[in-house]
Amino acid sequence: MSSQLGALLHRSLRVYQVWGANTEVGKTVFSTILCKLTSGYKPDEKTAFLKPVSTGPAEEADGRHISKFIPGLDSQTLYQFDLPVSPHLAAQVSQQNTPSDEEVLCKIHEFASRLASTHPGWLFVETAGGVHSPGPSGTTQADLYRSLRLPAILIGDAKLGGISSTISAFESLKIRGYDVELVLLFEDKTYQNHSYLTPYFQEKHSIPVQTVPLPPPRLSPSNDVSNMQTYYTTALGLPSLSAIPSHLSSLHQARIARLQSMPETASKTIWYPFTQHQQLTPDKITVIDSAKDSHFDTFQSGSPSKSLLRPMFDGSASWWTQGLGHGNPALSLAAAYAAGRYGHVMFAEAVHEPALALAEMLITGMGNKRLKRVFYSDNGSTGVEVGVKMALGAARARYGWAGEEKVGVIGLKGSYHGDTIGAMDCSEPGVFNEKVEWYEGKGAWLGSPGVRCEKGVWVVEGGGEFKTLGDVFDVEGREKRGEGRGYEKEIRRVLEKLVGEEGKKFGALILEPVVLGAGGMHLVDPLFQRTLVKVVRQSPELFGRKHQPNDELDWSGLPVVFDEVFTGIYRLGRFSAASFLGVDPDISVHAKLLTGGLLPLSVTLASESVFRSFLSDDKSDALLHGHSYTAHAVGCQVALESLKTMMKMEKSGEWGWAISSQQKGDDQTKHASSEQVAAIADSRVWSVWSHELVEWLSWQKGVEGVWALGTVLAIHMGSAGGVVGVGYKSTAAKGLQAALLKASEDDGSVHSRVLGNVLYLMAGQTTTEESIRRVERLVKQGLEDGTG
Amino acid sequence: MSSQLGALLHRSLRVYQVWGANTEVGKTVFSTILCKLTSGYKPDEKTAFLKPVSTGPAEEADGRHISKFIPGLDSQTLYQFDLPVSPHLAAQVSQQNTPSDEEVLCKIHEFASRLASTHPGWLFVETAGGVHSPGPSGTTQADLYRSLRLPAILIGDAKLGGISSTISAFESLKIRGYDVELVLLFEDKTYQNHSYLTPYFQEKHSIPVQTVPLPPPRLSPSNDVSNMQTYYTTALGLPSLSAIPSHLSSLHQARIARLQSMPETASKTIWYPFTQHQQLTPDKITVIDSAKDSHFDTFQSGSPSKSLLRPMFDGSASWWTQGLGHGNPALSLAAAYAAGRYGHVMFAEAVHEPALALAEMLITGMGNKRLKRVFYSDNGSTGVEVGVKMALGAARARYGWAGEEKVGVIGLKGSYHGDTIGAMDCSEPGVFNEKVEWYEGKGAWLGSPGVRCEKGVWVVEGGGEFKTLGDVFDVEGREKRGEGRGYEKEIRRVLEKLVGEEGKKFGALILEPVVLGAGGMHLVDPLFQRTLVKVVRQSPELFGRKHQPNDELDWSGLPVVFDEVFTGIYRLGRFSAASFLGVDPDISVHAKLLTGGLLPLSVTLASESVFRSFLSDDKSDALLHGHSYTAHAVGCQVALESLKTMMKMEKSGEWGWAISSQQKGDDQTKHASSEQVAAIADSRVWSVWSHELVEWLSWQKGVEGVWALGTVLAIHMGSAGGVVGVGYKSTAAKGLQAALLKASEDDGSVHSRVLGNVLYLMAGQTTTEESIRRVERLVKQGLEDGTG
Repeated sequence: MSSQLGALLHRSLRVYQVWGANTEVGKTVFSTILCKLTSGYKPDEKTAFLKPVSTGPAEEADGRHISKFIPGLDSQTLYQFDLPVSPHLAAQVSQQNTPSDEEVLCKIHEFASRLASTHPGWLFVETAGGVHSPGPSGTTQADLYRSLRLPAILIGDAKLGGISSTISAFESLKIRGYDVELVLLFEDKTYQNHSYLTPYFQEKHSIPVQTVPLPPPRLSPSNDVSNMQTYYTTALGLPSLSAIPSHLSSLHQARIARLQSMPETASKTIWYPFTQHQQLTPDKITVIDSAKDSHFDTFQSGSPSKSLLRPMFDGSASWWTQGLGHGNPALSLAAAYAAGRYGHVMFAEAVHEPALALAEMLITGMGNKRLKRVFYSDNGSTGVEVGVKMALGAARARYGWAGEEKVGVIGLKGSYHGDTIGAMDCSEPGVFNEKVEWYEGKGAWLGSPGVRCEKGVWVVEGGGEFKTLGDVFDVEGREKRGEGRGYEKEIRRVLEKLVGEEGKKFGALILEPVVLGAGGMHLVDPLFQRTLVKVVRQSPELFGRKHQPNDELDWSGLPVVFDEVFTGIYRLGRFSAASFLGVDPDISVHAKLLTGGLLPLSVTLASESVFRSFLSDDKSDALLHGHSYTAHAVGCQVALESLKTMMKMEKSGEWGWAISSQQKGDDQTKHASSEQVAAIADSRVWSVWSHELVEWLSWQKGVEGVWALGTVLAIHMGSAGGVVGVGYKSTAAKGLQAALLKASEDDGSVHSRVLGNVLYLMAGQTTTEESIRRVERLVKQGLEDGTG
Repeated sequence: MSSQLGALLHRSLRVYQVWGANTEVGKTVFSTILCKLTSGYKPDEKTAFLKPVSTGPAEEADGRHISKFIPGLDSQTLYQFDLPVSPHLAAQVSQQNTPSDEEVLCKIHEFASRLASTHPGWLFVETAGGVHSPGPSGTTQADLYRSLRLPAILIGDAKLGGISSTISAFESLKIRGYDVELVLLFEDKTYQNHSYLTPYFQEKHSIPVQTVPLPPPRLSPSNDVSNMQTYYTTALGLPSLSAIPSHLSSLHQARIARLQSMPETASKTIWYPFTQHQQLTPDKITVIDSAKDSHFDTFQSGSPSKSLLRPMFDGSASWWTQGLGHGNPALSLAAAYAAGRYGHVMFAEAVHEPALALAEMLITGMGNKRLKRVFYSDNGSTGVEVGVKMALGAARARYGWAGEEKVGVIGLKGSYHGDTIGAMDCSEPGVFNEKVEWYEGKGAWLGSPGVRCEKGVWVVEGGGEFKTLGDVFDVEGREKRGEGRGYEKEIRRVLEKLVGEEGKKFGALILEPVVLGAGGMHLVDPLFQRTLVKVVRQSPELFGRKHQPNDELDWSGLPVVFDEVFTGIYRLGRFSAASFLGVDPDISVHAKLLTGGLLPLSVTLASESVFRSFLSDDKSDALLHGHSYTAHAVGCQVALESLKTMMKMEKSGEWGWAISSQQKGDDQTKHASSEQVAAIADSRVWSVWSHELVEWLSWQKGVEGVWALGTVLAIHMGSAGGVVGVGYKSTAAKGLQAALLKASEDDGSVHSRVLGNVLYLMAGQTTTEESIRRVERLVKQGLEDGTG
């Protein structure tokens, strides 16, 4: 799905999608009634009818029926298939080309756009069959039309069994994020579905149900027309129906008015995270009406022919969480299933399937023999706090430190582990925390060499140049060639100084493998991190006392905590970022992509040797941490579905386009099969962002360096553009950010986030190659506009 | 729904519910096939058929059809209505009594129970019409049968439009937590729904679809029988069908085997929150297969005639979160809607409808004119950290303290604010945190007088006796009578000593209004807390310097933070617990019940005067806190739905039974209308736990005191039972807990949690009076058994 085709909302054109609870429920009769009712609503307005896909003989098509009874109506059928079967089957059988979903949506947009600028008023878009009847491509209509997210009018089923089909059809629309504004239904005296459904929808969902008598039975074509004429005349006189246009119109107006007022209301009501409100005027607040795949549908006023909702690429992957696409129906269904099966259930001394199955899947997926235990919490910060409590507790127990002895962590400069006090305390003082009450960095932090592409070459800070990023990540080869010896010496020197001279006591090594995220999107030399872990593990006597590991899975020196909250679960292309270093941590923290980008959940995985440190007969020796919604079933079920999907994507070589397209001059992947691609992916670094873009960027004036890995692209801007400030307070990347936000006619716009002088972009796991390339074009254009 | 009627699962009896995608899809033909297929599956087994509700002439009933083709089959119809319409309508029209949902479920349990002990094998329970066709009471079947949570066999619809109705019916089952194990479908050569649905269900949901040819058209009764005989013979010979019994049987076995092995697997895989694993043997782990309303369905082996899944009252309200019932379809739908509309979208400098609408609803609902701003985070701990950062920042800004000056909080002894380090630091040292790495209490904590019922009298510690709890909570009356003067004097003395003599610096007052929860379920004299706030607000010169408030909404003395994470959102019967004190805090933290008990979400509400303290041109002065899933749409939408529901319940006097039943000798509420009840509720304290129980408990040997408020009952046990330990390490309440966990034949069992010597019980907002009374009987019985 192209992200240019966003949701459809015009100020002057009220557009509705007419859905049927089943086939043969009277959609066309009700569409005719709706067209007739609205035709006279306001003097300057017109009503139009669109049938995107119609099957069955053309002379019986719904559009024809309506035109017959409303002469002069602007009515169109986009795709007509003669066979009276489901459109996907009719399309297969017919000699016509099957239109893609995108093509269908595009034509609807075009039709609406033409009307909006020439014939404001009403447009009813009638679907074919039931809500899940497949469209021409085979996608069911509820999914096919979702990105338009038109307000829905549901035609209920008056027949025997129709209560059920009406409610189920409604639920299928609802779980895809549609708003049903009206239910229409024939009155059948025998089955009386309307007497049940009217209070049902009114009370449970505040949706009005309007009914009309059954139309006359079909007799002969000539009789039918006059019978139906009479029927429509009678129906239109019903007081219940006459209120429909004003009901729909007031909802339409209210929706736009709300969207318009939201920035103002938000600026008075919301206290935004990580935001200096002094500068946050309402015009800077993006109103997100809904979202689909990799884009937001944002409210933007413009020309009447344009939809008020414009697609905007979610370039921060919604703060690094997004993976399987916004509005993903599989995740929606997984969430609802767990809610329906459990709600949330207590997780102390109890177990439920989603939590246990997810724990097992994580332990297997990590491929780290040390990790055997899963502790659940709610977000990256709490997951890190749990990890640190585990590590420090294990170290204290082994080394026998007294309770009053303060123990800190060894970390990296520029790290960031979260916003709760305990997580903040894991990082050195800096602009993020210097004014935070109760922050007190507890530990010592080592500098680490960065990696980035500069003028076409991959430069490791203080460590030479490489042809490809893959060469940098060949940590075993580099280690064998002795490239880690300098690191080892320097690390030992620093640690000995910290412990020996400064008398510091450490209980954990904590680091974000491969990329320091919130601290500034620094790609770190993986060989440095690998060496750091090695040195720490070889130095038990430095931190406590000599200790012979119980087995190869026992921690040594210090428990090693990897904060993979940002870097793990395929963000960088692999299940675990630790695999880039070839290092198995003792504790590993995961969040963000864990639920595919739907809702908060975190896990802290730990080794059995760490776990055993907390065993005793005294409850107060236990890890006394837990949140009320620990291992909430909804989160666990969604995570299960997400991990399963991503692991399947990896296995089936779904990212082959990215892997094979980005390797400059590397013929190995050019014509690889999907299994080959999967195998190659496993052994190498790759990104959805093209090598060409990275190379091009690395030569640009104002760009100090750039890197891309997995779904992340980070552009480190310099001060060449004349901008000021350093570090987090820098505004160097703001020009590019502003340029990306400005919508282009063809390529839409891009929402991005800036960290000081770094502008980064992030895709989801399901973002298409086409979307990425479009964003790449905008980046090039934006950089030329923004700094040129 | 009675909680005794839990989910149905027998080891020796495979029970399936046969659902139709619509009416007239061949449910009975497929039931016949299923019965025939399984009849010969194992030599010692039998197959039975149950039609709980049938409509239409008895001679055409589905059970008759099956018996005709499978002579000797154990087949039964529970309720037969002659009119061939939806059961709810047929029941209305008929002269019969309409059976309640409970009655229907009970009879199914009885039928299955009889079979399980006498005729193991198979049982197929066929529904009527479509999945949402209403049962006799009007509840749609998908909801009516949910508490049995039988594995489902869905009969798809082979007709035109049947792809849609089949998928929608499936989704309606799925979002209620049903497991569909098989889809069966006729092959229609024209519409070929099976060619679409087979890969659809296989690929998306790993559910097999099996098909058979269409049955012969109905001609005459005599022909029909012989035609159908031939048809069944042919169908049963199809290789695709012959695999069905082993498919179903292996799923049945696998399900039981998994349930059985889960404690063992969990004990090796999960690191439980707040748990000393040393004592956690697998037999102590409760396996929760699913949950409904106020109970868990837990796996418990027993006699063959009993379901392996037994209902267990969720007496901790799943760690204080539960409100609107487990498996609540409205919350499930709300979650799925937001997932379908948004997924999660970035919340910095952006806004979406659920977050904004929830913020507005909270600000209104709180009825506190000070609170104007809503900050979102993920759980109570993070919400408290945010609140404390806000308060301390505001105080520092106003009083001009330098960055290096350490500032603490004033709190209450026995308080507990969460498990992250910053939240822990708000409480004084104690057993929960004394061994927690990096914990360092930052502040000073005052003792507060407790309230409880002892020997029929409400005793305020050191403050006299009261006839009713309502008298204790008449804070304005008591204040007028001068009862607060002692408190005021003592509070001033302590504060002056802390600041003047000990030189401490404070930046916030933080307290849990009314009840100190995790610290030990202490009900605190509301007059004391009211007085404490008053003294703090009157003493700016004590904490900083004299300050004339800018307006009546400005904070004074110290920003007052109320941690309502546990006590708010109707846990104690009111939207906000602050209203019991008649005090408006400057900052208020909410979580737990906020989402009705479904998933994590927290809000920290703040006044504009606190908010303005963070405004500047410098980003680093902002509140630099935020989590990736801040204001996640799913949580906000579920919270909106929950709050709306609870506010509606309050308004319509839904808790009238509790309000009117508990007031001892108070005639005012006996015959009150619902509006009167709502008005009374607003002005008074009440509980779902009966006054009789509280009174009875207060006289028991071994009970030191007891209190009940809103949905909470807390029993403070003494050492009379001969048990040892003090405070959190006490095991005094363990005897009662164990007695409650032991299932009673009639009343089921109760899961409860113990805090030291306190056993508490907590209900949800939708827990029925009947459930409460049953639990009360168990409490009485348990106390007599446990300590007698």
